Amino acid sequence: MTSQANTRLGRHPERGGQDFETACAIIDAAHVCHVGFTLDAQPYVIPMACARLEQELLLHGSVVSRLMKEASQGLPICATVTHLDGLVLARSAFHSSMNYRSVMVFGTARLVTDASEKARGLDALVDHLLPGRTAEVRPSTRKELNATTLLALPIEVFTTKMRTGPPDEPSADVDDPVWAGVIPLSVEAGAPLDAPNLAAGIPFPERLKAL
Amino acid sequence: MTSQANTRLGRHPERGGQDFETACAIIDAAHVCHVGFTLDAQPYVIPMACARLEQELLLHGSVVSRLMKEASQGLPICATVTHLDGLVLARSAFHSSMNYRSVMVFGTARLVTDASEKARGLDALVDHLLPGRTAEVRPSTRKELNATTLLALPIEVFTTKMRTGPPDEPSADVDDPVWAGVIPLSVEAGAPLDAPNLAAGIPFPERLKAL
Repeated sequence: MTSQANTRLGRHPERGGQDFETACAIIDAAHVCHVGFTLDAQPYVIPMACARLEQELLLHGSVVSRLMKEASQGLPICATVTHLDGLVLARSAFHSSMNYRSVMVFGTARLVTDASEKARGLDALVDHLLPGRTAEVRPSTRKELNATTLLALPIEVFTTKMRTGPPDEPSADVDDPVWAGVIPLSVEAGAPLDAPNLAAGIPFPERLKAL
Repeated sequence: MTSQANTRLGRHPERGGQDFETACAIIDAAHVCHVGFTLDAQPYVIPMACARLEQELLLHGSVVSRLMKEASQGLPICATVTHLDGLVLARSAFHSSMNYRSVMVFGTARLVTDASEKARGLDALVDHLLPGRTAEVRPSTRKELNATTLLALPIEVFTTKMRTGPPDEPSADVDDPVWAGVIPLSVEAGAPLDAPNLAAGIPFPERLKAL
């Protein structure tokens, strides 16, 4: 079903777009998305791990999750990915801003039922967050796979929005004796913490050092 | 109006809570929240700057924003703050997880109309993101204040959810010769970038170096 979402941007239309490659790049850089849905007229927004497989955004959860059940039965959802890239300091509060990349994907998710497609999708989720990890760990058991719901949301109806660069402000402000510019922000990985019960002699995986 | 949101946690209720101080700590550490709302049966999730002032979550936007207009007229919203604190690697994909702190605040926002309350709220937003900044920049003009909508969402109906610590997995997996532990993640500020038109001799503000 094609979503009837209004993807026109009322504010700052110059920051928006509907380019598929741009949407994919934003999604591929994300660990989590925020999934919005409505139950009994109340909106909910839940953070969830996400990954992209080809032209779909993958979401997973427990088979007993209400969201997973409702979403697999056609509940309209909106999955938003946001990267906050910087604080933009103009010489005034009003013209200060943020640099960011975001994408909102609208639609209804497809329940992935085929066992091999489901296993492939769950592997994609793991390897997206932890490159190469599925080759290191034991395969999931049938019981584990059965306990997991995998949903695929088509990346068909979406809006990207982003801001980059220095502050944009009226020339009247530029002479104010106040610092202006951008404070870049990024998500950084710290030194890995071994599990307390990690057996001796097992090093942190080489492939994950890129994180 | 008190929200009718269902704040029971179906999954991992041991991770959840309704403690106000905990909710405030999560909000106070955030730059952005994700605001969910429903228009014409379609859910939307939009990233927005946020701050807390006493017992309310502050949101601001343009007076011409449709969300701002609808939200100021009683549209139910859900504002979710999420901090992704780490990737949790169990010896299996199934038991791998994420460490995070999140809060969902449900309700309807109040339009802040009193001029001095509005100015104070907007200052709180700026100083939350950029400590001490309002003392450095010129005051907003009346035109700028009139162009901005400030909403205050009571932090009354909310759910916190968090996970901390090492992987939690069955003892049968613990002998697998695979690394297990946590990769911490955090948002870090990079070196500030001067605006191209920054006048010579204006240093980066001392107070912002704490970022």
